[in-house]
Amino acid sequence: MSESIYSHSLEFTVRDYECDLQGVVNNANYQHYLEHARHEYLISKGISFSRLHEEGLDLIVTRVEIDYKYPLRSHDKFVVKTGLRREGNVRLVFVQDIFRLPDKKAVIKARVTGAATRNGKPVHPGDLIERLGL
Amino acid sequence: MSESIYSHSLEFTVRDYECDLQGVVNNANYQHYLEHARHEYLISKGISFSRLHEEGLDLIVTRVEIDYKYPLRSHDKFVVKTGLRREGNVRLVFVQDIFRLPDKKAVIKARVTGAATRNGKPVHPGDLIERLGL
Amino acid sequence: MSESIYSHSLEFTVRDYECDLQGVVNNANYQHYLEHARHEYLISKGISFSRLHEEGLDLIVTRVEIDYKYPLRSHDKFVVKTGLRREGNVRLVFVQDIFRLPDKKAVIKARVTGAATRNGKPVHPGDLIERLGL
Amino acid sequence: MSESIYSHSLEFTVRDYECDLQGVVNNANYQHYLEHARHEYLISKGISFSRLHEEGLDLIVTRVEIDYKYPLRSHDKFVVKTGLRREGNVRLVFVQDIFRLPDKKAVIKARVTGAATRNGKPVHPGDLIERLGL
Repeated sequence: MSESIYSHSLEFTVRDYECDLQGVVNNANYQHYLEHARHEYLISKGISFSRLHEEGLDLIVTRVEIDYKYPLRSHDKFVVKTGLRREGNVRLVFVQDIFRLPDKKAVIKARVTGAATRNGKPVHPGDLIERLGL
Repeated sequence: MSESIYSHSLEFTVRDYECDLQGVVNNANYQHYLEHARHEYLISKGISFSRLHEEGLDLIVTRVEIDYKYPLRSHDKFVVKTGLRREGNVRLVFVQDIFRLPDKKAVIKARVTGAATRNGKPVHPGDLIERLGL
Repeated sequence: MSESIYSHSLEFTVRDYECDLQGVVNNANYQHYLEHARHEYLISKGISFSRLHEEGLDLIVTRVEIDYKYPLRSHDKFVVKTGLRREGNVRLVFVQDIFRLPDKKAVIKARVTGAATRNGKPVHPGDLIERLGL
Repeated sequence: MSESIYSHSLEFTVRDYECDLQGVVNNANYQHYLEHARHEYLISKGISFSRLHEEGLDLIVTRVEIDYKYPLRSHDKFVVKTGLRREGNVRLVFVQDIFRLPDKKAVIKARVTGAATRNGKPVHPGDLIERLGL
């Protein structure tokens, strides 16, 4: 859990409705946690996902890789740690890992690749890059 | 399960991710079933919820009342039956009941009140009323 | 927003994935907020919804009434306020209202009726009543 | 869309509540579609995910890789195609691809790795392998 690769972290508590009949958080819900952490990270840089959408610029996910290490259960506390790097000209790669709290047990290791689109066409993320300090 | 009050019915199968740690469909998900059934009913009348939104007219829910009679479980089949009536000048009331299949056991009894808005302001649903045959 | 009828309050931030194509929080998700607030309220009284389930006692919702007053949008902050009273011998009624923050605009007015079941049969909530101070 | 690698296919219609404020299906919901298709595939082989859980055997996902090719929108019809192969002694790899209907446009390319656990410990999937014809 070296801090150096992460530039943002956000704490959550598991909500019971996020658990499925196996009694653990349903796999898809981790993508919700990751998405919310990315959007809060962007907001911390002054970038609003929903406002960008209204302005015609959509940030989209083109690929996710998630390794499920250990399941979260009812009422567990956890942190989503997020780092970001550029890849090539137009792609952004979010490194996102989830750790249970307080014991820092690894829950999820994820890599999420994103791109910017306007009217469904890929575009250069432009000044987003600058605002993200990349 | 008198048919006379219903004008639309739609069959579903419970998906496992809709069940929570009690092993039954989570309460909120019944609202998803009811919403999907209403939208399919509207589509059967030539009315697209998402296209209306793009045109600036939003159909919104102002009140729901749901009696939970019996829970659905993994892989259960069920039907959502929907009826519709006008109430006053601008409100639409959907009568929506869910029955498990094939035994027709009552699962949910719901009344969903809706209205039309434009830019967040209530408006007369106009020709929707006509297209819905009300 | 008189405080006297509420005994618990919990703050949230809208997550973008909770919004639907109308750009507002999807109606069903308010039930998720209400459920999470009820469970946190119970936990504050030493009662774990998931542990009760493992012990064979399920707290279930038998009826919800929700008035939708004003929609929440991307990144809005809000509070769920919860009060609780007994109704008859075996029912618990949660009064749950949602207010946007910081302006306290009324978002949702809800009444959620619950009961306790063991193996699917209604049972007296027993010492839960005492622990809840009712 | 060569059929040879797939052994199961399941058709869906996008439900409006699955779309987010970008007007397209939220990324996490594709995992719900994939999960439901896997569980229906298992059921077609006589294997119930929820019954296995009650018997103490859990099928879990250890890794997902998803390439998002093209977004689904309100009311789109689509098919999830699923193939399955063994990897090593204990892992199952589901090849799952989503195509929009009727034009067969590629929407999602996914690889989902699963394993069996009992009381949280990995176990040999045993006769599941046989029942799946692997």
